[in-house]
Amino acid sequence: MKKYLAEFIGTFVLVFLGTGTVAIANSGETAIGYLGIGLAFGMAVMVMACAVGGVSGGNFNPAVSLAMMMNKRLEVKDGIFYIISQFLGAVAASGVLSIFIKALDLPKDGFGQTDFPNVTAGQAFLFEAIITFLFVFVILMVTSAKFGNQTLAPIAIGTVLAFLIIVALNVTGGSLNPARSFGPAIFAGGSALSNYWVYLLAPLVGSAVAAIVAKFMGSEEK
Amino acid sequence: MKKYLAEFIGTFVLVFLGTGTVAIANSGETAIGYLGIGLAFGMAVMVMACAVGGVSGGNFNPAVSLAMMMNKRLEVKDGIFYIISQFLGAVAASGVLSIFIKALDLPKDGFGQTDFPNVTAGQAFLFEAIITFLFVFVILMVTSAKFGNQTLAPIAIGTVLAFLIIVALNVTGGSLNPARSFGPAIFAGGSALSNYWVYLLAPLVGSAVAAIVAKFMGSEEK
Amino acid sequence: MKKYLAEFIGTFVLVFLGTGTVAIANSGETAIGYLGIGLAFGMAVMVMACAVGGVSGGNFNPAVSLAMMMNKRLEVKDGIFYIISQFLGAVAASGVLSIFIKALDLPKDGFGQTDFPNVTAGQAFLFEAIITFLFVFVILMVTSAKFGNQTLAPIAIGTVLAFLIIVALNVTGGSLNPARSFGPAIFAGGSALSNYWVYLLAPLVGSAVAAIVAKFMGSEEK
Amino acid sequence: MKKYLAEFIGTFVLVFLGTGTVAIANSGETAIGYLGIGLAFGMAVMVMACAVGGVSGGNFNPAVSLAMMMNKRLEVKDGIFYIISQFLGAVAASGVLSIFIKALDLPKDGFGQTDFPNVTAGQAFLFEAIITFLFVFVILMVTSAKFGNQTLAPIAIGTVLAFLIIVALNVTGGSLNPARSFGPAIFAGGSALSNYWVYLLAPLVGSAVAAIVAKFMGSEEK
Repeated sequence: MKKYLAEFIGTFVLVFLGTGTVAIANSGETAIGYLGIGLAFGMAVMVMACAVGGVSGGNFNPAVSLAMMMNKRLEVKDGIFYIISQFLGAVAASGVLSIFIKALDLPKDGFGQTDFPNVTAGQAFLFEAIITFLFVFVILMVTSAKFGNQTLAPIAIGTVLAFLIIVALNVTGGSLNPARSFGPAIFAGGSALSNYWVYLLAPLVGSAVAAIVAKFMGSEEK
Repeated sequence: MKKYLAEFIGTFVLVFLGTGTVAIANSGETAIGYLGIGLAFGMAVMVMACAVGGVSGGNFNPAVSLAMMMNKRLEVKDGIFYIISQFLGAVAASGVLSIFIKALDLPKDGFGQTDFPNVTAGQAFLFEAIITFLFVFVILMVTSAKFGNQTLAPIAIGTVLAFLIIVALNVTGGSLNPARSFGPAIFAGGSALSNYWVYLLAPLVGSAVAAIVAKFMGSEEK
Repeated sequence: MKKYLAEFIGTFVLVFLGTGTVAIANSGETAIGYLGIGLAFGMAVMVMACAVGGVSGGNFNPAVSLAMMMNKRLEVKDGIFYIISQFLGAVAASGVLSIFIKALDLPKDGFGQTDFPNVTAGQAFLFEAIITFLFVFVILMVTSAKFGNQTLAPIAIGTVLAFLIIVALNVTGGSLNPARSFGPAIFAGGSALSNYWVYLLAPLVGSAVAAIVAKFMGSEEK
Repeated sequence: MKKYLAEFIGTFVLVFLGTGTVAIANSGETAIGYLGIGLAFGMAVMVMACAVGGVSGGNFNPAVSLAMMMNKRLEVKDGIFYIISQFLGAVAASGVLSIFIKALDLPKDGFGQTDFPNVTAGQAFLFEAIITFLFVFVILMVTSAKFGNQTLAPIAIGTVLAFLIIVALNVTGGSLNPARSFGPAIFAGGSALSNYWVYLLAPLVGSAVAAIVAKFMGSEEK
């Protein structure tokens, strides 16, 4: 039970800080900018991996939980409840943010949702799959018992997420996480919702490939 | 005595760097921006937790000291002197900054005070309570003997404060700390002072809830 | 074989995040700016040193591999395959990025290539040699068994790369790495290709001098 | 001899990255901004403390060496040669930068020198003394055998320098270091040179007070 709550709170913080920065802190001359947006998501994962990683492992992302299940680092039963907790955490965070987005009279479509107005669905799928592959590969290697770096693991994981999102912002918005995109999409609606299937499936494909490659490289159960 | 001095200096640095960045470094084309403002507060806590955390525990915040007292990590007598030291440190830092704010002919209301011109008092209260809950929850978990990450604890605590403040800047200014808001408020006066009760009470409520949730999660005395 | 794959993926991530930030994330009012560009390259090295440093040592740069071979930290045979893997990784990352650069209709010359429009070839050569000397000197010292800092080594290496690149952006673009410049140059062509010899040779000269100075300072095999 | 070379190279990197960022990377729409300037100085100290701290202790600053001598962490004879090496390193870095500043046709007065056009000499002296006090106090505490944080010490020291400089940029430019200000001043001349006495004396006063306060707090020889 505690580990599911840990995944709920961790994903809540990821969406609250990440999409909250996009939706609330990214306007005016002191706009947070791409660097700040990427870091908000990445550092949320770094912080919560330190805070509750000892309880649940700190996935906060269904794509990560999939790879952990594939490489036997997470039991399937736990994985399913992790994923449910992650979706609930993302929706709860978007709900809380929507109260303040409305109070501040911010644009109705500004929930930090992900979309790809400038590329095709196929290109968006490919891009999200590639960046999620790199993200999950880094996670599996850096937490590997044999080759990893336990001390800096949360920093490495959070930092690579930050800069993968920065490169992705003008392409797909940089989700890498089906739960992170679901929360804002149900509040924003429109194409964020109709295009959601890309953000559901592409990260899972990228993550599955990462699980296989990391296993070949010799990453072992933590 | 040394630990009270540690709390005084730590809170002095928090307010000196944090509100100093807002008041003195945030003008012109090279403005520090929201990312820099958030990081100034957060990294001040990170640095001082490394510098004097070994002396006093590194609270620098009456809301944090409240949670530490509730979870028996801090004796009540010490806690009271900690809180007094924190208020004195915040006032002293604001006093030093006010000398240079006047010397530079900066706007009279630019003391880095907190206020909420765009939301109601109820919304501001709710927001400050939520972000302080998340902040104190992270502190309690990351310093937990059983689940924490002692090595990265100061970095995790400082970083989450930075990004919570960034999301909050357009809502409440992001205080999370009754002492941090008190120092600038007495120099700025006006609504920063008349609205101060929100920044006094909301962080205490959020922190008390965090103490209870973290206890349920199994965080134990450091 | 695994260590060559590690060098391939590490250099892929360096070029994907670094030149991807320059080419895709550096436009409009939320431009990533010089700080973000430098950090994208530097933090890519930090992350991949944590992720696959335990497999290959984490060079991701022919100039680094040269110094490692000179100071007997890397066998010559491995070094040659490392360098080949690094060039392949850089070309592959530039190829993947070029798909999305075209899809987004970004300027044809925006592949994050390095060039020196404002200084002479001699000045560019001198600058690249100096910054690569400093970069490789830091790497050799920080990973030294006698004087180094194993815990923070990836952070120190990534951070010094970030700020060396920032100082260099208006001079030479800040390569410090023959593989990093080769990938974008073959896609961009023009003077990025005809001036490539500077980015091939200057880093090797700087790195060779760093190997000698670090040896004098007493850095020893890791 | 090696430790003097370590102080020379460390101070060279501090001035090369710090004032290089101000002089070369701070123009145009992608200007580095105050956050980047502060971080360039601070992270240079963090990196070089990791790289050569094991050789010399990593002072890179006559004010720091003064405090280390006062608290018997550095022998007076070594301290004198440290300070000479620091001045030579700062001048050498400014000399190298001046070649490229001229090649790029940058403004003649853009050597990253420190000055205080908007405050009086007395105010400037007070400000530099206060920020150097805070900087050196953090150094002495964080490296203290009893209370310190050996793992994160370089990060805490570099980060506090970064944000102290950010707050100081509009007041005194944020030197905290007689050697750092001397190098650019002799190339820039004018009021940077005639006002240099403030940057020579104020940091020494602040540092001496920090040595006394840190001793009272119980910081002991490393």
